Amino acid sequence: MVGSLGPRVIEGGIDDVQGFKSKGHAAGIKRMRKDLSVIYSTRPDTTAAGVFTTNKVRAAPVLLSERHLASGKARAIVCNAGCANAATGEQGMRDAAEMARLTAACLNVQPEEVVVASTGVIGRHLPMDIVSEGIKNCVGTLDQREPGSVARAMMTTDLVPKEVLVEAEVNGTVVRFGGVAKGSGMIHPNMATMLAWLVTDASVEPDALRTALRDVANRTFNMISVDGDTSTNDMCVALANGAAGNPPVTRQRGYQQLKDALYLACEVLAKKIARDGEGATTLLEVRVENARSAEDARLAARTVTKSPLVKSAVFGRDPNWGRILAAVGYSGAEFDPAKVDVQLKSAAGAAWVLRNGEPCETLDKDGLRRIVDRDHVVFVVDLHDGEHDATAWGCDLTYDYVKINADYTT
Amino acid sequence: MVGSLGPRVIEGGIDDVQGFKSKGHAAGIKRMRKDLSVIYSTRPDTTAAGVFTTNKVRAAPVLLSERHLASGKARAIVCNAGCANAATGEQGMRDAAEMARLTAACLNVQPEEVVVASTGVIGRHLPMDIVSEGIKNCVGTLDQREPGSVARAMMTTDLVPKEVLVEAEVNGTVVRFGGVAKGSGMIHPNMATMLAWLVTDASVEPDALRTALRDVANRTFNMISVDGDTSTNDMCVALANGAAGNPPVTRQRGYQQLKDALYLACEVLAKKIARDGEGATTLLEVRVENARSAEDARLAARTVTKSPLVKSAVFGRDPNWGRILAAVGYSGAEFDPAKVDVQLKSAAGAAWVLRNGEPCETLDKDGLRRIVDRDHVVFVVDLHDGEHDATAWGCDLTYDYVKINADYTT
Repeated sequence: MVGSLGPRVIEGGIDDVQGFKSKGHAAGIKRMRKDLSVIYSTRPDTTAAGVFTTNKVRAAPVLLSERHLASGKARAIVCNAGCANAATGEQGMRDAAEMARLTAACLNVQPEEVVVASTGVIGRHLPMDIVSEGIKNCVGTLDQREPGSVARAMMTTDLVPKEVLVEAEVNGTVVRFGGVAKGSGMIHPNMATMLAWLVTDASVEPDALRTALRDVANRTFNMISVDGDTSTNDMCVALANGAAGNPPVTRQRGYQQLKDALYLACEVLAKKIARDGEGATTLLEVRVENARSAEDARLAARTVTKSPLVKSAVFGRDPNWGRILAAVGYSGAEFDPAKVDVQLKSAAGAAWVLRNGEPCETLDKDGLRRIVDRDHVVFVVDLHDGEHDATAWGCDLTYDYVKINADYTT
Repeated sequence: MVGSLGPRVIEGGIDDVQGFKSKGHAAGIKRMRKDLSVIYSTRPDTTAAGVFTTNKVRAAPVLLSERHLASGKARAIVCNAGCANAATGEQGMRDAAEMARLTAACLNVQPEEVVVASTGVIGRHLPMDIVSEGIKNCVGTLDQREPGSVARAMMTTDLVPKEVLVEAEVNGTVVRFGGVAKGSGMIHPNMATMLAWLVTDASVEPDALRTALRDVANRTFNMISVDGDTSTNDMCVALANGAAGNPPVTRQRGYQQLKDALYLACEVLAKKIARDGEGATTLLEVRVENARSAEDARLAARTVTKSPLVKSAVFGRDPNWGRILAAVGYSGAEFDPAKVDVQLKSAAGAAWVLRNGEPCETLDKDGLRRIVDRDHVVFVVDLHDGEHDATAWGCDLTYDYVKINADYTT
């Protein structure tokens, strides 16, 4: 129970949300491991919303799913790993539509009620015989509960599955928000992360779900970066099936509670994605404070998490804070360099290294090194130039990132 | 002699341009190697122009030199490596001014006629006693010719010195353009590269020199990227001393000849910087053709050279062209994905991998791999959407980039 305490993370995942069935399955698209998944809402009146990549090159499933979600309703999500179905032309569109049609037929819903997603190599066609067989088998075993299997079936170079369960009170009723996501590489979402699914048993009107998801995605998934590469397949979708029986959330009723719970679920997933960035050893958190505008704060924070020089220094446990300042400087954010403070923080302590644009004379190199020698480091940049804050998350740049990406397609 | 053949690269460097003296010196700022240099024009009537970093955080020498160059005149450049004199506040400004004053006194010119530049770690004060001693010693040995010493004294993590000599006919007279540059990391210039000096014995009016340098820097130094990090200290300066005796170049007379020669010198230096990017094994050249606007072409080309995923694939000799397309997609350039062609090229051959947004069915993976298994690879992206072209240069992302940058300050 949550009472008035607000949303909290509890043990479990999407299998613990009433009225949803889901399953990850090894279809054999790429390797002998789980690579296809289906999430299904058993309740007809399920509302849905999605946010999609801003990449000009949009994969076929992104184009199709955006169309399907325009109604504000959906019953199922089908997702494959191993092939992105991007840069695949007309054939790609036909294949994505066929995935929706087949899934719908197996579940006895309409094709327009199915969200389709793909992740993997760009520029290859889907092996549709394997995918079709996989969908049938996956849906056929939906009743055999296998917690964690959907998160595993979404993974590409991810090392760990990413899942969360949040409990919250919304309009006087306790509801749950389950979420799964994949990340790893090509992570610099410009709407949402690579792929993230949120399911809730709350009853939420489509308009409230859509605006809440957009707002929350902007502050969570859109603030993480592994490598600055925005994918062609990014997609974040939320399904709300109302099984909890709460008075439906609208923009006027329970909206803030919905957003708070959704925010918590998405923030947990976003940080899991950043921490599991390809090759990463360290979660990098950058907090920009007192910027002139919200956009300036976001720009500055994201630019620091993206800087290869900052990321390499984090990997090397090198407190080279000049690179943080340089990145803020080229971010495009407006500020006065003479007013900037920079602080390094971690569980090992905190130290100001720059005050009013001048280096702090008390710098003790070993002390600074101890602060950044942790698997979660925080850089605070105070611009003293306004009242807008933003937080961005990223990871270090390591030998393993290069190794993983030097030979991916073969 | 060049005649009507246009500019050409010849053997030599800045020491082979009449009326200039220059020297690189080991002052002991950081290590026992050359780390301080002076370039001096023996002719009073030397015109000068500069372009500077767009980073909001600008190093003290950048601020000072921009002020000094406002007159369109300069006689000398003094430059140190090992300390960037950036984020150093008022003390930093005093130190930069002192470098100009000392150099001017030794050369018997005015402090306002001296360009000051620094490169190295951000956030540390210059060791002014060492720097002052170094300037005196360096100027004292200017008459002892030591070709290549200036380029070496500018290096930080650069592996090779970067120098060029171009001969061209301008207004009927054969003139020379010598250039030196440093690059390596924090290379994503937004005006010019890290540091580049061009000296010519041509007579050029200040206005013509300024506009030509800006135009050429935009097409050369501003089109290279090692890591997407724009430095606080970027600076490119050209000195023209008129020793060749040509009728002075103005915007109306000899301007195109000047630009062509300057372009050649700058392009050679820019490619040297890209090829010697930190840890790089491969020069990456991206040509975007038929874009809707010049800005779209530039954006798309630069974004591809900056993408960590593309750069890692180049390192791994992996013809993963989907990443090229994805990077063009998120670059912000306007285009229609259904019209895009992509070609991979090198000395080993060329192959179209995408035509009209669809993968070419004739793809032979081994053949593609042979094409990208070279130390200079070219990606051509034809947008079929207009008539603007742009070329950008970068390098691969390697284990050594991470290694070099994981521990730089210590």
